[in-house]
Amino acid sequence: MKCRKCGGVAVINMRHHRLALCADHFVEWFISYTQRAIERYRMFGSDDQLLVAVSGGKDSLALWDVLSRLGYRVDGMYVGLGIDGDDGYSAASQAKAEAFAEARGLTLHVVDVKQTYGESIPELAQMTRRGRKPCALCGLVKRHIMNRVAYEGGYDAIATGHNLDDEAAVLMQNTLRWQTGYLARQAPVLPSTHPRLARKVKPFVRLYERETAAYAIVRGIDYIYDECPHAVGSTTIFYKGLLNQLESRSLGAKLSFYLSFLQAKREGLFSEPGEALELNDCQRCGQPTTAPELCAFCRLWVRRIDKG
Amino acid sequence: MKCRKCGGVAVINMRHHRLALCADHFVEWFISYTQRAIERYRMFGSDDQLLVAVSGGKDSLALWDVLSRLGYRVDGMYVGLGIDGDDGYSAASQAKAEAFAEARGLTLHVVDVKQTYGESIPELAQMTRRGRKPCALCGLVKRHIMNRVAYEGGYDAIATGHNLDDEAAVLMQNTLRWQTGYLARQAPVLPSTHPRLARKVKPFVRLYERETAAYAIVRGIDYIYDECPHAVGSTTIFYKGLLNQLESRSLGAKLSFYLSFLQAKREGLFSEPGEALELNDCQRCGQPTTAPELCAFCRLWVRRIDKG
Repeated sequence: MKCRKCGGVAVINMRHHRLALCADHFVEWFISYTQRAIERYRMFGSDDQLLVAVSGGKDSLALWDVLSRLGYRVDGMYVGLGIDGDDGYSAASQAKAEAFAEARGLTLHVVDVKQTYGESIPELAQMTRRGRKPCALCGLVKRHIMNRVAYEGGYDAIATGHNLDDEAAVLMQNTLRWQTGYLARQAPVLPSTHPRLARKVKPFVRLYERETAAYAIVRGIDYIYDECPHAVGSTTIFYKGLLNQLESRSLGAKLSFYLSFLQAKREGLFSEPGEALELNDCQRCGQPTTAPELCAFCRLWVRRIDKG
Repeated sequence: MKCRKCGGVAVINMRHHRLALCADHFVEWFISYTQRAIERYRMFGSDDQLLVAVSGGKDSLALWDVLSRLGYRVDGMYVGLGIDGDDGYSAASQAKAEAFAEARGLTLHVVDVKQTYGESIPELAQMTRRGRKPCALCGLVKRHIMNRVAYEGGYDAIATGHNLDDEAAVLMQNTLRWQTGYLARQAPVLPSTHPRLARKVKPFVRLYERETAAYAIVRGIDYIYDECPHAVGSTTIFYKGLLNQLESRSLGAKLSFYLSFLQAKREGLFSEPGEALELNDCQRCGQPTTAPELCAFCRLWVRRIDKG
């Protein structure tokens, strides 16, 4: 297979784009494709100060790499969840994130949940979730910390490495139950609705997982290959499997599913404004919340203190 | 496994309803469940004259059986498509439909496409579709004939045997491309928009294919087991496979997908009225059409005459 640009040996064939490219031209294409998504969805400009949520995996490190190569002012943030299990998942992923930052002279903020708040995610989950998966809890904690770090550091937007496969799986999950509220909020950009809640952006929404992985490999990025041990058997992974079957049958099906959804939204689907939520300041941390006194994050810890 | 009603031997376990039933109680439940759907979606009343579109398969014969047992005034209509291939599919299915009607003293209208219009579906497809699947063409022809027979016979509604698996597969297909126009029109009842277009109703929309099959078997209905040979490898069958995987992972997923879609529609999703289509009378057959002169059905035959 030959590179369409130079005739050299192609390292990837993106059949949905009818585009095979060599390593150099793939990197060039990947960066430019990301920049076009940033512009198309008006994610941010060159004056914005960006914070990338870094897990140590291929997507977030590739994103940090691309954004810094594009010349954006971008720092990283790693949240230490204390998910260690047999593989030392958190310790290993933190090491990858730190090595990446150090080698490139980039700034990485590290917030360790246990050191900062007193308990790791598994410890917290054990007390509050009674053996259920800690994923919802983990998401809540990470969102809170990301918003706090972005606010305290004066960042304009938080960028996450969600790729097309991630977005399509969530879209399928929301669609199968017609959760119109979630569908209304699923987008490449979530605008800030409060001074303490940074804008969220996903520059990789149009890139297949296979493409972000190829970018990380071609660029020699050393990332953590394992999924979080709690993700095993997750609904998201199941939906990704269904979507892969669809893609095998119909080339470009994932991209078409996601892009036609965005198109339908632009044409007014799900545009029902709903009632604007009334936001209060959490009495403990100051972040906005729909609850009257404490936000969901602070309620977690206060419950713990009560029980302790 | 025991029947929940009488403790006898259950013939079916509907796990999504947590309901196992013996043959007699399953038949009783199935009929009553259908009647509840007829009422819930306001499909028709006891004064209406109904026409069931009968293919000779389990769904349409089960529907005819149920509607006549419920005391509705219901005749059948069979369209002879001339799809014979190796298995004599059309001839065999017509025989099943005729035997069913005769044994029960029911009235069956038979319209043979080749005898009435000059060519069978495969012949017509060969000329107009150049080897492509004739399914779209076949749908167009059947809709035309159903509307004609219903209009000429003074029927109030056309009932079809579409079950939940059929509807969920179409819903998935439309959703994966966010075809909002099709989604807006997908419903258990399609009201009549013109005196020559009968209301369309689908009393089995909430019944799994497995349940309609069980009903046909338990009631001793002799139906044609084979699918239409053109359906092999179809997109619908592929989506049914995906939905079966979903159902295996999450009990009731198909029903929830379809019912939450209807719920979202009731809450206003897809309610964008769009422009009312201007309908003209076809100059050849009189059926309403959005085209200025001939409807799509008549254009098929006029093209043929021109070519011939």
